[in-house]
Amino acid sequence: MSSIFTKIIRREIPAYIVAEDSNHIAFLDINPNSFGHTLCVTKKEVDEIFDLSRTEYINLMNFSRKVALALKKTVSCNRIGISVIGLEVPHVHVHLIPLNSMLDATFQKKINLSKAEMSELSKKINSNFNF
Amino acid sequence: MSSIFTKIIRREIPAYIVAEDSNHIAFLDINPNSFGHTLCVTKKEVDEIFDLSRTEYINLMNFSRKVALALKKTVSCNRIGISVIGLEVPHVHVHLIPLNSMLDATFQKKINLSKAEMSELSKKINSNFNF
Repeated sequence: MSSIFTKIIRREIPAYIVAEDSNHIAFLDINPNSFGHTLCVTKKEVDEIFDLSRTEYINLMNFSRKVALALKKTVSCNRIGISVIGLEVPHVHVHLIPLNSMLDATFQKKINLSKAEMSELSKKINSNFNF
Repeated sequence: MSSIFTKIIRREIPAYIVAEDSNHIAFLDINPNSFGHTLCVTKKEVDEIFDLSRTEYINLMNFSRKVALALKKTVSCNRIGISVIGLEVPHVHVHLIPLNSMLDATFQKKINLSKAEMSELSKKINSNFNF
């Protein structure tokens, strides 16, 4: 069965997409730790990040860097954090999390945004993304 | 003033070093989330990961991948997680954390290892590291 992320890639379910290239997609986390929390995903459905080839991994991390630079331009925060866990969805994804305190990095605190706020935020990040 | 990581790089303070190349060093986190928790650090003292140049960032992530592959060979776990936060030590460092549950990724739970256990573990990881 396809992962929830593959369904987003195929446009079978909606998401607030912020960037995309031929091998990757980035969209807002639907249950964000903080304002701007974004997931960067390989279009190839692989479970563990370290099961990617060296080239696939480097390409994902480079794509994630470009998304992070767009996030930094868009969102006010101390810095952008990175987290790769993968115990819930078995499809490689890099969390980019705007951090102001350690609590933003722990996945213990969640924030709520309206659909309008999510939509506006995804468009702003996308407008700062340099391909 | 030099960061605590620069002091480790200069061998001014001790650490359980697991890998090193000309631009990076990896050593066991002294206050680990889980067995095998390792930090990968740029020798250049920069605060934020996304302030590194593209090349410096890619080189760090590639070094971290090699350390993660050595960790996977050494430690029994579901997978190796990645975390970059940097709110405490202003010197770029990538956490590689052997994960079995979400709790291992949250920095809320810490484990204690003896000096002998840390020393033995660092040597085992090093023996699995491919330069």
